Amino acid sequence: MNRQEMLQHIDHTLLKPYAKWEDIQTLCVEAVEYKTASVCIPPAYIARVHETFPKLNICTVVGFPLGYSATEAKAMEIMAALRDGANEIDMVVNISDVKNHDYQKVEEEIRTLKAVCGKHILKVIIETCYLTEEEKIAMCHAVTAAGADYIKTSTGFGTGGATMEDIHLFQKHIGEHVKIKAAGGVKSVEDLEAFLSAGCDRIGTSSAVGFLKGEAAKEY
Amino acid sequence: MNRQEMLQHIDHTLLKPYAKWEDIQTLCVEAVEYKTASVCIPPAYIARVHETFPKLNICTVVGFPLGYSATEAKAMEIMAALRDGANEIDMVVNISDVKNHDYQKVEEEIRTLKAVCGKHILKVIIETCYLTEEEKIAMCHAVTAAGADYIKTSTGFGTGGATMEDIHLFQKHIGEHVKIKAAGGVKSVEDLEAFLSAGCDRIGTSSAVGFLKGEAAKEY
Repeated sequence: MNRQEMLQHIDHTLLKPYAKWEDIQTLCVEAVEYKTASVCIPPAYIARVHETFPKLNICTVVGFPLGYSATEAKAMEIMAALRDGANEIDMVVNISDVKNHDYQKVEEEIRTLKAVCGKHILKVIIETCYLTEEEKIAMCHAVTAAGADYIKTSTGFGTGGATMEDIHLFQKHIGEHVKIKAAGGVKSVEDLEAFLSAGCDRIGTSSAVGFLKGEAAKEY
Repeated sequence: MNRQEMLQHIDHTLLKPYAKWEDIQTLCVEAVEYKTASVCIPPAYIARVHETFPKLNICTVVGFPLGYSATEAKAMEIMAALRDGANEIDMVVNISDVKNHDYQKVEEEIRTLKAVCGKHILKVIIETCYLTEEEKIAMCHAVTAAGADYIKTSTGFGTGGATMEDIHLFQKHIGEHVKIKAAGGVKSVEDLEAFLSAGCDRIGTSSAVGFLKGEAAKEY
């Protein structure tokens, strides 16, 4: 896979709460220039990005990064995001429901939110750093049964990011229609190649464009 | 001020994304026993806490902790929280709007959300660790003009918490009807006494009940 092919799998990401408009613009200009899969940006910037960069594929986050907002609030976030011009939604599951082993509740929430997304892509962040292997496997089943498009490892705001072990675990337990997004642990060209070779379809990172240009990896 | 008087100013807090129901129950039992001002809990637990501990004053968080969800999503979060049994709402401002110096936009969002709260208390978290002095002063004015009940320093998830300097700055620039909540920096009885003596009306902390019982401060 050459650099351009790798870039087509990158969600070029800036989710810091204090990002200024200039920072978001820089991200978008890079995404256009390097033809990344998308820009992944805060909900409040979607409308402005869509207006300024109408051809960009916009990804945003919902229930992010803690996952414990009400399902109806997450649904409203998705409706606002799609109306403002987003095409892809990265949602966080209610991690407490996972820890309480209310897996059915998690599955129902994902199904509800996928219905709100319609044909738009829904990625489900399970925040692996807080889960046991049993809980991760239960999440593979919930994401599959609920009809989401992707399972995603991490928010980048937890205590850990994507690991190769988790990618292999996902591949054993997700359904055929579910793709994998790795995030929060991709800090070098070597990481990027490893996660893509392992079969991840998308990589969420703030630093890929930088290190593909030869710069040092920036903080997520 | 004796220990019981201090406890009446504490929002007894557990906002970790992986909190289990047992953890939330322990928090609530402590809040009842030690007569804290409130429990501050994730939105997804409000209904269950309200049912199990009907006399508890429930505080929750909105747009938390990054602040960049859409205003209408924050409004939906508040409506769901009040319906489920919450009495007090701690919202996070859109920090990017502050950094872009769109102070009017911040003020309008707070005014909109205060209207949704009605007679219920609205506390506005400005996340001081990311702001300049000019921006903090602008937030004192916005919170005052928008009619919110409290200005609150921090989420506890940023790079820093409450400082005595910020409390003094708030007191110089907020209106008479606005109270102060310090959070994210209160780790000992000495801290608690200092912030209360400085005129803070509420303290958000996960460790106060512990250290008022003589235990070591727990992580926020």
